[in-house]
Amino acid sequence: MPPTMAAPPAIKELPEPPGLPEPLPEPAAEDLRLETILGALSDPLRLRIVQKLLLERERFDHPCGWFGIDRPKSSLTHHFKALREAGVIRQRQYGLERRSHVRRTDLDARFPGLLELVAAWTPDAP
Amino acid sequence: MPPTMAAPPAIKELPEPPGLPEPLPEPAAEDLRLETILGALSDPLRLRIVQKLLLERERFDHPCGWFGIDRPKSSLTHHFKALREAGVIRQRQYGLERRSHVRRTDLDARFPGLLELVAAWTPDAP
Repeated sequence: MPPTMAAPPAIKELPEPPGLPEPLPEPAAEDLRLETILGALSDPLRLRIVQKLLLERERFDHPCGWFGIDRPKSSLTHHFKALREAGVIRQRQYGLERRSHVRRTDLDARFPGLLELVAAWTPDAP
Repeated sequence: MPPTMAAPPAIKELPEPPGLPEPLPEPAAEDLRLETILGALSDPLRLRIVQKLLLERERFDHPCGWFGIDRPKSSLTHHFKALREAGVIRQRQYGLERRSHVRRTDLDARFPGLLELVAAWTPDAP
């Protein structure tokens, strides 16, 4: 029998390795705005990106190819940029590749519970 | 000396009085979508409306005049409707007046922690 309430999915934590490239431009932690972050997350594709980073990350940060999303590269670039500019993800340039991870420490400190909502999100039935 | 972390603001609970008019059309609790709700809340004015209902309610539900927001009536009507259609607030028609309250039970069950984020929101400095 299923339990009456499922345990929340576990968010994976990986330590930051040394010697990473500088992050791309992003808002400082103290400048994060809830309304801006909610806007950036009000899209199923972006929720999917952030949820996959939270629950399935295998390395410190991941390029957009890792997500397995069947969309044009320019569209993905736009969505990742919107998440970065809102302060949800941090992006770094590794040569030709841009990799992302969630700004978990900053978001947990400013908006406790927000990432748990994203982790627990279920996509609409197709 | 201020504490290092402020206590979260208290959300006010008021019982539903008997004999209320039927709610205006709204999504059922099981049809609430996180992405839609985040989109409806991604606006400072809407966050202000929901936060005031959560923290300062004096009656079960309130007409838009109670909020003291200096905007045209048509603009306010639009914002309240967007919040209702996303499932954040419930609205009822009392004669000529439309009153609102937050769907706290539904939102707490589906998206635990979401309303606490709204309650703790601080508007940007003007």
